[in-house]
Amino acid sequence: MSKLLAVGTVAFDAIETPFGKTDKILGGSGTFVGLAASQFGIETGVVSVVGGDFPESYLSMMNDKGINTDGVEVVKDGKTFFWSGRYHNDMNSRDTLVTELNVLADFNPVVPEAFKNASIVMLGNLHPLVQLSVLEQMNEKPKLVILDTMNFWMDSALGDLHTVLKRIDVITINDEEARQLSGEYSLVNAAKKIHEMGPKYVVIKKGEHGALLFHNGKMFFAPALPLAEVFDPTGAGDTFAGGFAGYLAKTEDVSFENLKNAIIYGSNLASFCVEKFGTQRMEELTADEVKHRLEAFKELTQFDIRLS
Amino acid sequence: MSKLLAVGTVAFDAIETPFGKTDKILGGSGTFVGLAASQFGIETGVVSVVGGDFPESYLSMMNDKGINTDGVEVVKDGKTFFWSGRYHNDMNSRDTLVTELNVLADFNPVVPEAFKNASIVMLGNLHPLVQLSVLEQMNEKPKLVILDTMNFWMDSALGDLHTVLKRIDVITINDEEARQLSGEYSLVNAAKKIHEMGPKYVVIKKGEHGALLFHNGKMFFAPALPLAEVFDPTGAGDTFAGGFAGYLAKTEDVSFENLKNAIIYGSNLASFCVEKFGTQRMEELTADEVKHRLEAFKELTQFDIRLS
Repeated sequence: MSKLLAVGTVAFDAIETPFGKTDKILGGSGTFVGLAASQFGIETGVVSVVGGDFPESYLSMMNDKGINTDGVEVVKDGKTFFWSGRYHNDMNSRDTLVTELNVLADFNPVVPEAFKNASIVMLGNLHPLVQLSVLEQMNEKPKLVILDTMNFWMDSALGDLHTVLKRIDVITINDEEARQLSGEYSLVNAAKKIHEMGPKYVVIKKGEHGALLFHNGKMFFAPALPLAEVFDPTGAGDTFAGGFAGYLAKTEDVSFENLKNAIIYGSNLASFCVEKFGTQRMEELTADEVKHRLEAFKELTQFDIRLS
Repeated sequence: MSKLLAVGTVAFDAIETPFGKTDKILGGSGTFVGLAASQFGIETGVVSVVGGDFPESYLSMMNDKGINTDGVEVVKDGKTFFWSGRYHNDMNSRDTLVTELNVLADFNPVVPEAFKNASIVMLGNLHPLVQLSVLEQMNEKPKLVILDTMNFWMDSALGDLHTVLKRIDVITINDEEARQLSGEYSLVNAAKKIHEMGPKYVVIKKGEHGALLFHNGKMFFAPALPLAEVFDPTGAGDTFAGGFAGYLAKTEDVSFENLKNAIIYGSNLASFCVEKFGTQRMEELTADEVKHRLEAFKELTQFDIRLS
């Protein structure tokens, strides 16, 4: 069976939106990636760290979904990473209220033996040297390595980021970060510059404005599905990445044509994530719902022009 | 031959962008709509008004493109509508430096006899009562009436706008204006409310983020083509509308499926408009270039998922 290795955070979130407010609930990039990938019936191993305060029930929920959590280290006398944020009325911008790194501050990911031969590796948004240390634990070169990063590492660890960029295949990044990393305003030019840094595929996430895939001068675009209500955007980007990575692990085809499909699956799953608070929608999501929504994506984007 | 009637401005623009600055050059919504529609080999009649200062060479350029300008009134002792603006570095926002309405202040559009039976009518962004007066001059109900409007009329003539909305088929509007008109933040909900005001098709223009078509709970999305350089965005929205209307006039098929194609053609032509200052790119555009770019749109959006 195909294997996906996902390194990221498993954490607590507390979220305020115009629709309501949560206590500490399950969150984290590794969690959302794992839940999205679990739709594909592959073996997903999550590597992360939590504190002694992390409920076992969360880990067993993930296990029930087929997610392997052997790589989630539990630091008994530590506290789990905690993020709290408040979304503005437009749901597109948010203020961070609290960031407590806790056990994440000393995170040294250890890849379980069973996942050292994973074909697809998803390196969540962590220090570039932490991302690099994961690659160095692999038994063989994975079929495809996907890296997520953010402006924080461009500001604080740009040299290390460039080192790891040379070792990966796909970078996922938002539009502003692509501009910062490349120094180019146009996303077409930004992608070209980022190609030169290493990644042969550049995925630019534009939130409600969809996602762009660039590869050697070729482009593909997947819109976000317009929704009547966006309830909570937390985790949508990670769910997108998890759908993308999970689909590639399932199909084991890393051609440009198949990466297009992976982008569509990422958008598909992300459109569910935002419908409820936290991981709730992803926990209850069924294969039929995903299939049905794939039809909605086709209707949204496919056309048939026959003009003589 | 199919006929398109386009009512709008024929005007002077002076434009500043990070790439340079123009003197008074040819502009106006009617001009851009006409030039876009001229790609379809249909009869396009532009109805507008200019002053005695308007160069005949501009009108003859339009005539050479097959655009009928019999409906462009020339007020000999008046001055042509003039707009001047400066784009910011991101090319997505601009400051208006000058707006001189001049002869446009007393514009009473007169539809030439030959266009009173046009199958497609494009009502450019003008006072709603001026738009209404055009519809009342038609000999028969057109196959499709498209209306463009803006927040200015929502603020100053909302009642009149609602009157004309009951008489039209398609509204083209930007995302912020759709939110203002409907009082709904979600574009899905905004489109639903706007449907109830009259238009059975709602086209929401999102500039560089593409365009959405809504019809009875169905949706279609066309991205803007990502470009290495956007030189001057002036007229892109009108070019989009002209491509949309021109394609519909050419095909005389106003089904939802064919409106999808029209949206793609609108995006196609708009992607050229921004490549040079003012109307320059649209004046020199060839059918082969349009055909070639249609392929780029297909590559950008079409996918083929076969997952068992």
